Order: sequence, then structure tokens, then C-alpha cells
Amino acid sequence: MNCLIGQSGGPTAVINSSLAGAIQAGIDFDFENVYVSLNGIEGLLHENIKCVDKDLFEKEKANDRLKKRPSSILGSCRFKLSDNLEDDQYKKIFENLKKYEISTFVYIGGNDSMDTVMKLNSYIEKNKIDWINVVGCPKTIDNDLCEMDHSPGFASASKFVNTALRQIRLDCDIYPIKSITFVEIMGRNAGWLTATSYLANYKRKKDIVNLVYLPEDSKSLDDIEKEIEEKFKEDNNLVIAVSEGFMDKDGKLENESEKSFDKGFNHPIIAGIGLKISDYIHDKLKVKTRSVELNIVQRTSFLISKTDSDEAYELGYLAIKEGKNQTNIVPILKREEKKEYKVRYSTTSPSNIANKEKKIPEAWLKSREILKEKITAYTLPLIKGEINQEFTDGIFDYIKLEDFTK
Amino acid sequence: MNCLIGQSGGPTAVINSSLAGAIQAGIDFDFENVYVSLNGIEGLLHENIKCVDKDLFEKEKANDRLKKRPSSILGSCRFKLSDNLEDDQYKKIFENLKKYEISTFVYIGGNDSMDTVMKLNSYIEKNKIDWINVVGCPKTIDNDLCEMDHSPGFASASKFVNTALRQIRLDCDIYPIKSITFVEIMGRNAGWLTATSYLANYKRKKDIVNLVYLPEDSKSLDDIEKEIEEKFKEDNNLVIAVSEGFMDKDGKLENESEKSFDKGFNHPIIAGIGLKISDYIHDKLKVKTRSVELNIVQRTSFLISKTDSDEAYELGYLAIKEGKNQTNIVPILKREEKKEYKVRYSTTSPSNIANKEKKIPEAWLKSREILKEKITAYTLPLIKGEINQEFTDGIFDYIKLEDFTK
Repeated sequence: MNCLIGQSGGPTAVINSSLAGAIQAGIDFDFENVYVSLNGIEGLLHENIKCVDKDLFEKEKANDRLKKRPSSILGSCRFKLSDNLEDDQYKKIFENLKKYEISTFVYIGGNDSMDTVMKLNSYIEKNKIDWINVVGCPKTIDNDLCEMDHSPGFASASKFVNTALRQIRLDCDIYPIKSITFVEIMGRNAGWLTATSYLANYKRKKDIVNLVYLPEDSKSLDDIEKEIEEKFKEDNNLVIAVSEGFMDKDGKLENESEKSFDKGFNHPIIAGIGLKISDYIHDKLKVKTRSVELNIVQRTSFLISKTDSDEAYELGYLAIKEGKNQTNIVPILKREEKKEYKVRYSTTSPSNIANKEKKIPEAWLKSREILKEKITAYTLPLIKGEINQEFTDGIFDYIKLEDFTK
Repeated sequence: MNCLIGQSGGPTAVINSSLAGAIQAGIDFDFENVYVSLNGIEGLLHENIKCVDKDLFEKEKANDRLKKRPSSILGSCRFKLSDNLEDDQYKKIFENLKKYEISTFVYIGGNDSMDTVMKLNSYIEKNKIDWINVVGCPKTIDNDLCEMDHSPGFASASKFVNTALRQIRLDCDIYPIKSITFVEIMGRNAGWLTATSYLANYKRKKDIVNLVYLPEDSKSLDDIEKEIEEKFKEDNNLVIAVSEGFMDKDGKLENESEKSFDKGFNHPIIAGIGLKISDYIHDKLKVKTRSVELNIVQRTSFLISKTDSDEAYELGYLAIKEGKNQTNIVPILKREEKKEYKVRYSTTSPSNIANKEKKIPEAWLKSREILKEKITAYTLPLIKGEINQEFTDGIFDYIKLEDFTK
């Protein structure tokens, strides 16, 4: 019996930790062959499949090295399976699963990918297939997956964001002139990642980030202008975190952030919301402004939270372990109600995650003080620990697929 | 007798290494008080001056911690001294130098700051002042300082750039669809930093960066289009490094990069050249394009070359050591013509550096193959070694001025 693992959706810094955990479990639980599918479900459709060389995997310390290798090493896809279970896609997929004698298939991804897991399980149920289990494994920097305390990948993205903000602040403070730096952060629908900007202020007498704007806010440009004028009483140089999904209440600025790189990859980026607010405020307040987009590296940074990486690994391991005997599950984590941060792992059904979004609790959004307190307490334990990265000849280096597959 | 140190111009990741070296030399060479001037020469003009607490400096391990603290901890300025030596500015400056009993003043900066050092020395010479030495200490990420093999700060910026490019490539490769990612890199007049993009390809079978465009190039948008079409034969996903100073030969696109954040901080960024080329190529080739600006963090990254940091420290140390007995000098480094990388330190006159620019040798620009070979051999030894950064509670942390001054 063999197992198969694929990755889907946008990358995270720890999506390969889950892969490492799944491969290790594949070895530990005596799967004869551990296969990987390239570009998610597309690799399975087109037989773009590789086999893990178990000896190389150990020799190359791939288990450890995958934990530090950001962005989906197996490639990804944005392929949506047909709603019609009679579609030939399904026939082809299950033919290939049969051909490779796969008894457990783990699909690592976000809410869209759990839709794939759900549909494959509908096909299994409908056709009374008893030789394969299809399970999910969660990931996303957006932290919007339901059923779990937090999404693997979120904490590393947050660590990148608050580190970037501190670095940007170091630049902002050097000139004794009034200025505003807007920093645009990922998160189209939910402000989780942008809200974690507040962590940059943790235990600082002077704020690193002065204002934070989220998709959840209902604020106009005039509101922003007023808040900025108020903050200028405290500091000459302001740093303002803006979620790419922020929409001004009055719709004065056409929000073109949909054209940005993720989903709208097929259009050039015109300008993010950060730049638009920056231009608007510059014109209104006649003050120096600039806009910085944190951009792609938010999800592929070599700066990784050790806690996040360890948890992602554990979930990948569990996906194979539990998926050996059950289908239609996704391993998840809950936070224990203890003083010391600790998580408890369990499983849920992919239908509880697929096509759903977890939002920031409304109670947290009542005031910025509450949000700051809540998001800091929530995120702080998740970003703990760093990982020593690989540098060869002074250059950032990382494991390659051919290092441990045949 | 006391010494004084100031920082000026744009920040680098290792400008505080030079400060650390200068403070340590101030202690080692028995200056009674080691003072620092805030916001460069402006601090000296307005008596915004602090004294290093030698005990705290040792207790807080400030020597080591400053080596990892990116961006000018003393603040900076873009203050240009008057060309007229009779100007009251000079009187005020020398009054304050006298008041604080400064016998050696070290000014850490780039070509503009060396203009300040030069002018102060003209004043000294003209007025036959014998109680003070004013010396420079070089820094810039642009690598355009004359007289020295390379500029302190350049190597860390390069390390950031090639690391960013590798991270971006990890994102680009995950989808099996044709795409181009343009990456805009700092360097308004000289392409040194952008040229080091080639280091990302070092020892890689498959290129991380496919094309590189410099201010030194004389290329049209049609040339770029043709080169891109050629590269698409090798790879489906292209990564293209563009210097912010690139100008298309035909002037088809108005180059607005002057509006960008460094000098034009007083204007919002409209759009960089990377974005403009990206839009143009998207329209022409109907292919997916996006543009990423590496932005401020290029010069304030926590990712620091140990070699760069050590050299910057040494230059700061030398500035005080040599500046104890001589005025009107700048410590510099030359590369020894040996198999193993080694530098030799000496001094030069600020007039050899002030208001001058070192360009990439024309011979290197004859072909991209030559450039790649030359810039790699030149830069590789400079980016060697990493520095373990400080993280407290999982958050990037760094020394503050109040930790070691009174």
C-alpha cells in the first residue's frame, strides 16, 4: 500500500513542514511507497508524480530541511473540481490513484483545497469505494480556516510582518521631518494578518505602528485623516498598517486591490489601497507620505516561527496517521485553556472548513485597545522561536525536490 | 580630550557597526568622553548630543549588539553645509566642538557626507585651527564610493537582494502558468546592487533571475520584449531584476523613479520603473506580469553579511584611531591580490570621495556573461557569513540608544 501527498493554494512558509510530517508518517506507518503529486490535483490528473527515496530522505536530512524551506516545494494549482461527480476528471483521478496503489491521499491546502477533499469524498461515498482514504491538511497565512484555533502558516507570516514593520520603523525614524509610511499587508477578506501588526509594538514605550486599518473597518478617508492628525501629536513619523482588503466607507477611492497579484495574477498590479490612501493623505495634509507593499515574501519568507513549523509538521504527520484508517477528515488544532500555551490535536470533517471563512471576533473589534490586547495575547505564543536557515557561500539555500525523490 | 561621532545620509544595515568600532576605539584610545551627535551635523549645530556611558556600553554588550542593529541609530540628516566658509553655521559648529572639548570628530556617511567633512577641513585650514581633527568614515549600499574596493553596507544590501530574489522565485515557480515577475531594486545612478542579482543564480542549474536591467544599459522596451521572448524558451516563469534607475533608450515611458522614496520622500511614489515595464510587457505579450519593489528594507534588513559588518566596524575603529592624530582623512579598504579574500586598510582624503561616483567598470558591461562572472567573483566574498539576530518573545529586537548613553 502506498500513500500520496499534494499541496494546493497559495504558499506559506511552513507548508513543507506539513509535507515533511506526512512523509515521515508515511515511512513510520509502513507505506511501501510515499508518492508526491506535483502542482496539486493536476499532478494526479496528468500523472506528474514522484516517489520519495526513503534512503535519500534520511541521508539528506530532508525532514529537517523541509521544515525551513518556504513555499510549496511540490508546486500548487488553483484547479476547482467539477461539481458534477459524473465528470471524467473523477474517473481519471481514481484510475490514477488505483494505478499507483494509493490507499491514503493527503491534500495540504486552504478552504478551496478542502472543497477538493470534500468532493473526492463525495465521489468515494457515491461509488462505495473502499480502498482509499482522502484527507486534508490545513494551511493558510490568512488565518481564516474554521474549526481550528489558528491556521498553520499564519504565525510565520505574522512574524515576517512585525519584523518588516520594525525594520521599516528603523528607516522612518532617522530623519527629523514629519512623515507617514503606509505599509500594505496581505489579507483580502479578513484582517487577521494586518491586525498582528500590533505585535511590533509589544513592550515598546514608543509605538512602532501608529494606526492599523482592516477590511472589517467601516471608515472613511476623512476618518483616517482625523486619526492621523491626532497621532501626529504623539510622533513626527507615523507608520500605518493597511490591509490590502481595506475599503473606504464612502467609496471615494475605487479599491483596485482585486487587481493585485494573488487571484488577479492575470492582471498587472495598478496600485494597492496603501498607495491610494498615501496619495490622498499627501494631498490633504501636505505631509510627506510613502507606501510600501510587503508583497509576496509575506508568504515565502525564510524567517519562520518555530512553533508554527512544529505545529504544521504535526498536522502533516497526523494526516497520514489518521488517514491510514479513515477518510474524509482533516487534522486540526485547538488551544488548551491553560496558562502555558499548549495545543491539542484532533480531526474534523473537511465540510466544516471548505468554502468557509473564520473572521476576527466582533468583540475584538469594539475598540483598537481591545483589538491590540486580544490579537497580541492570541498571536504571541504562535510566533515563538526561530529556525536557523541554511546559507551556502553566504547565499540563502534550501532543499530541492530532486534531493529526496526519484 | 573628547571625541564625537555622527551618522549621515541614507541608512545601511551596518552603519552602526562603524559606530560600534568608533566608540570602542574612543574607549581604547583614552578619550575621556565619547559623544554622539543626533541627526548628523544638525545635532552638532543644535547641541543635540549624548554621551556614551562606558560602563553601560560594556555591560549591555553594545559593541556586539550595535553590529546587528540596522539603520542609523543616531538618526541622520540631509543637511548641506554652505559653500561660504564665512557662514554662521561654521562658527556655531566650531563653538560647539570647542564647548564639548572635542579633539576628534568622525562623520559616518557617503559621498555627500564626505563633502561636509571636506568643508569642515577647509574651515580648519583657513582658520589655522589646531585643536580638532575632522575625519570621515565611509558607508553606502550603492557601492559608488571612489578610492575603495567596495563600500561598507553594499554587501549586506546585496545579501538581502539575492535572498529576496530566491524567496520570490520560490513563489513564482509554484503555478504551472507562464508569468513574469519584475523586481525593482535600489540604485538610482549606478547598477551595482541590481547587478548583484546574478548572485542568486550562483551554482544553480536553473536560473533564479533570468534578466537584469541597469541604469548603465542603453536598451529600449522593444529590446526588453525581445529578450523576454527569448528567455521564455528556457523557462515558463521569468524573474527580471530592474534597477530603479533604468531608463528606456527611446524614452517611451516617462521614468518617474525620481519620485520614489529616497530623495523624493516629499512626494508620494507614483509608480516605479519596474511596474511600468511590467504593464508595458503585459499589454504587448498578453502574459501574466507583476512587479515587486524591494523597497526600504534593502537598506535596513536584519539579514546582515558578517564580512560587511566586520569591515564596517574596522573602518569605524580606524577613523578614531587615525583621527586622533590627523585631520582630513577617511579610512578605506582595498582588496589584496591574493587567492583568499583579504582586505588592507589605509586612508585617503575626503576630497577623493566627496561628490564623486564609482561606476561599474565598462569592461564588465560588454556582455551579460562577463558581467555575471565579474560581479559574482567581486561580491561573493563580501556577503559571507551571517549574524544571529536578537529575538525577544519571538519578535525582532535591537539595542536602543538609551541602553548605552546618558
